[in-house]
Formats: sequence, structure tokens, C-alpha cells
Amino acid sequence: MAHNKNQNQAQTSYSPFTQPIRCIVKLGGAAITCKNELEKINEESLLKVSEQLRQAMIATSQKPPGMDWSKIPGESEICCKPEEFEDNYVSECSRFIVVHGAGSFGHFQASKSGVHKGQLDKPLVKGGFVATRISVTTLNLEIVRALAREGIPSVGMSPFSCGWITGERHISSADLSPVARAIDSGFTPVLHGDAVLDEIQGCTILSGDVIISHLAAYSKPKYVVFLTDVYGVYDRPPTEPDAILLKEIAVAEDGSWSVIKPKLQNSIEITVAAHDTTGGMKTKISEAAMIAKFGIDVYIVKAATTHSLKALNGDLRNSIPDDWLGTVVRSSG
Amino acid sequence: MAHNKNQNQAQTSYSPFTQPIRCIVKLGGAAITCKNELEKINEESLLKVSEQLRQAMIATSQKPPGMDWSKIPGESEICCKPEEFEDNYVSECSRFIVVHGAGSFGHFQASKSGVHKGQLDKPLVKGGFVATRISVTTLNLEIVRALAREGIPSVGMSPFSCGWITGERHISSADLSPVARAIDSGFTPVLHGDAVLDEIQGCTILSGDVIISHLAAYSKPKYVVFLTDVYGVYDRPPTEPDAILLKEIAVAEDGSWSVIKPKLQNSIEITVAAHDTTGGMKTKISEAAMIAKFGIDVYIVKAATTHSLKALNGDLRNSIPDDWLGTVVRSSG
Repeated sequence: MAHNKNQNQAQTSYSPFTQPIRCIVKLGGAAITCKNELEKINEESLLKVSEQLRQAMIATSQKPPGMDWSKIPGESEICCKPEEFEDNYVSECSRFIVVHGAGSFGHFQASKSGVHKGQLDKPLVKGGFVATRISVTTLNLEIVRALAREGIPSVGMSPFSCGWITGERHISSADLSPVARAIDSGFTPVLHGDAVLDEIQGCTILSGDVIISHLAAYSKPKYVVFLTDVYGVYDRPPTEPDAILLKEIAVAEDGSWSVIKPKLQNSIEITVAAHDTTGGMKTKISEAAMIAKFGIDVYIVKAATTHSLKALNGDLRNSIPDDWLGTVVRSSG
Repeated sequence: MAHNKNQNQAQTSYSPFTQPIRCIVKLGGAAITCKNELEKINEESLLKVSEQLRQAMIATSQKPPGMDWSKIPGESEICCKPEEFEDNYVSECSRFIVVHGAGSFGHFQASKSGVHKGQLDKPLVKGGFVATRISVTTLNLEIVRALAREGIPSVGMSPFSCGWITGERHISSADLSPVARAIDSGFTPVLHGDAVLDEIQGCTILSGDVIISHLAAYSKPKYVVFLTDVYGVYDRPPTEPDAILLKEIAVAEDGSWSVIKPKLQNSIEITVAAHDTTGGMKTKISEAAMIAKFGIDVYIVKAATTHSLKALNGDLRNSIPDDWLGTVVRSSG
């Protein structure tokens, strides 16, 4: 299996990460965009997510100066106050990597053209590849800007530009040194699900979840947080009245997983969103299990809540409060 | 000198470009943005430039279907017509690389913070680095979209994301394989002047002109076109009444250059724009001379004119019509 191959490589081959990463965060597409409206950011949620990331990453109580010095539409000048950046101002920022999904960006273009199925020689697929990248990089830019406004030194890094390529949809080659160098220089890389070249089928969609799994294998973060639009992983579609939140999932050495909390009587049914070209919750659990196998705790939690702030802070690493809502995926070993 | 070192490397070391590139085009910042207004694109000029690029790159008389399937503000649906992309529709596109400058994007942020001078440990420089990248990637996205609307399969590739790094402001490491792979897959990479990491001084601004010189050395294009906002290189600031357009510049083997046409009596004064952090016309001629030394013709020409279309088409390679306005820089050897 291609995944296992990647994992073994990760444990034996060269990693460009010189110092440990504290946390990899996935901003789920559903949490930061409006599901039912094409190419629309959920501004309120993105703002809260950015604020929580700043609180988790930057220790100062005061909000640091913003780093998005873009012109506001309608104004002729750019608002930037260099005097706010005093040399003795400490802007130490935790080593985080941010990866986001596409939500209502990119999926329309990808599914209209079938980019995930390859065949780049077809004009429609080539057009869809270009259109998908335009859509997801538009979202990436807005997320980088939102983080920068909070004082997080965010830098957009597209997997396609970084030269990441897949083979039958699994990552076959990804030079992580640009990402590692960006972190070593004090920046917060912001990657995203992207249209990429595929050695076998020409092209595909590389999901944010697969990117996180790959980054985690090489950078060994202390913990990984998936921010979603629901409280965690449920035993059935969370819209169903009797859906039960799975609070703890244990991952065995062979990668199989089982629900520890709460105790369940029936087997688990996993939801897959109909319009999600990269696979919904099922992909998420599989990738989370892959990460947990390395001994890295994974928290799947609703974005912009007190629960997500606890997860981002790393407060859950020792013990998980009873009133915490979310799903923990961790190694049973 | 670092430049000469790069050149020698280019001639001896591995190049990932498997097939020849037809043309590298520089979209000058001044030609595609409004000089006197911060972060404002010159939409009319960008449209004409994109149309001319399409005419030069795609042989069909009919305009191919657009590849920017973004939602237009105010509309709820995305306009995309998959039926326009018939499988028998031939979208063969010449192997071009596009590199653009920053114009009224990025320069403000870079000069306010001194990103070009390095010292990334200073909070202001770090903030300026983030702000500069936001500004130049905003422009990059709009250029990629303008080209895609013409049916050019454009893909944005940021030098920083691609892992390009400098040493004392000269390119010290740049993995060109993602760019080469994008071209081999039928795409048109769109790079840009960017804030990048520097091995010696921490960070700097990598100009579009230096990027072109580096790409030309490795990819050996048939010709290089610099699209600017004036008719070419003049003997003095082109705003002065007696400024003379230098029509032909010959480059000797040692990299020195001299004006062949017209015959001049006085020595040449080169203009350097006051607010250009990457050096104005002087950098342009030096970089053009560096490219011409490889036997590659360089055309410096006013964007969106009949003259620029001739240059982009490659019509000038055999002979240059007397009524053509622009500057040719080529090897005297």
C-alpha cells in the first residue's frame, strides 16, 4: 500500500526539519468557507480561527502589529505603522504549519472537469486544472491575509509550486526543504489542497488531509489539530438526531482503529460528503490514524469554539477534560 | 562575480528542461500596473498584453475557451461551459514562461520595511516580508487569471514557494524542475519578483529581471521579450525631450555592451527610477546583456503595441523592420 510505503520512508529517509514543529493545523474547508455559496469565505469564522491561532502561537497578551499592508478598496493610501514594530518588540511565534482545505473554492472547478481523475491531455481537464488552481490560490491568499492581520508571519506555499507530485494520487515526491526553511526563518507556512501533477494519471487533486499526513510523518509535530464545522467525528451523519460524538479513537500498530469512548453497541458508519472530490470524514479518520501511529495526538474539533482553543494551545496533551467536545485520535501503544 | 559564476554553472550543470523553451516574457511592473496609484492594475494594458500573448502562443484563429472559472462578484453561479472544451479541440500552446514585475504592488511594502536589505530578525523586516509577499502574490493571481481568461493554461509559481534562495542578493539555489515539469505538462508558468530568503543577509527582494536571466541560462529560450511602458531603452530618461531610442545593443563576449544603432556621439546615461528597490533600466540592460551572451536575442519593447506583438511572435529573429520601435540586445559574436 502506497501509504505504508510513505510511512516507512518517513522513518528512515532524510527530513529537512532541524527542530521540532509544535503543531500542524488543518483549517477545514467547511469551517472557513460558506458551504452553500460558491467561492465565499466565512469571514466571521476565519477571523475567530485566526485569533485563536494567534493566541496559541504568540505568547504576548497584546495583539502584535498586523502584517497585511494591502490597500483597502476605496482608499488611496496603505495603512502601515512601522513604529509599531519596535526592535525590542519580541514577536516570537511558535513553530506551526497551517494547511487548509478548499470548501466552496476549487471543488466546483475540479468536479466539472474531473481533474482528480487525471487525463491532462484532455482540454477540459487542463482547463479545469488551471481553474481549480486559481480558485484554491484565491482562498489561500485570503487565509494568509487573515493570519497576517493577526500578526502571524504567514507565507503562502502552494504544493504545486513547491513541486509536489503524486503517483496514483499518493504523494510520490515532495521536497519539504522550502517549508522547513520557511519555518526556520520564523515564518508560518500556509499550504492547501491543490491540483498537482501525477506521474501515472497526469494530474489529480491532492487533499489537505493527505498533505498533513505527509508533513506530520516528516516533521513529527507534537500534536495535530483538525478544525471542522462539527464537534468531531460521529458514529453517523451528525445531522441525524441520534448521532453520537466519538470522543476517543485508539489506533493500533497495524493502523486499524477502534472507538474507546463512548462505548458503542453497533458498528461505525462513516459519512462521505457527496460533493467532496477528496473524500469526506472517512479520509479524515484514515489520515488521522496514520498520524496517530507515529505517536502524535490528533484532535478533531469544531473551529472557533472554546474546545478548539484548548486543542490549539496543546492543553489536551496531558489530560482531556470531561466537558471537552471533540474527537481525540491517538496511538494505543 | 556571482553572476558570472551562475552563468558558468548554467553551461555545465544539469538542466531539467528537456525540450527547448520558445520564449521567456517579462511583463514589466510599469506596463501592467498604474504607476501613480498603489496596488492598482492597468486593466486595459493587461488585457491587451494577454491577448497578444495568446495570439503568439496559440495558433488557432478562434479564441480558445477561458480557464478562469471564478465567480464574478454579485453573481451566485460560476460561468463555465465544459462543452466548449471538445476532446478534438487542439489547444496546443507554445512553450512560454511568463515572469512579471511588481509595479505598484510590493514596492511600497518592501521599501517601508527594507526587506531588500535583509535582517529578518528585525520585526519590521519580517512584517514587511509577509506584507510584500501578500502584495506581489495578489498581483500574480490577477495576471494568472487574465491569461487564463484568454485560454492560456497559466499556473502561478512563486519563487519563494519554489524554494529559490539567494546569497548576497544573487540566486544561489533554485530548483527549476517544478517549472520544467509544468511546461512539459503543457502549462505556462507565471513567476514574479518576490521576497525570498537569503543565505547571507537573511532575506532580500529577488527581481523579475534576475529571475529571467537565471531561467534563460538554464532553459535556453529562442528569444526573450521585456514588455515595458516605454518604447525601449533610451540614451537618457525618456521623459527628456531629446531622448534617443537605442535600437540595437551589441554584447561582447566579456559581457560589455555598446550601442550599434543609432550611432551616438556622447556616452550613455542610464536612468534608475527612484522608487524601484530592484534597480531600474540599468539592471534591465545588465540582465539583458547577460542573456544575449548565450546567443539569445532580447527585445525590449513597449507593451500592447504592434511592436510588442512582432517581438512576441518571434518575427524579429531574422530581420528587424526599419519601422519597428524597440531595443534589440544581442550577441556581437
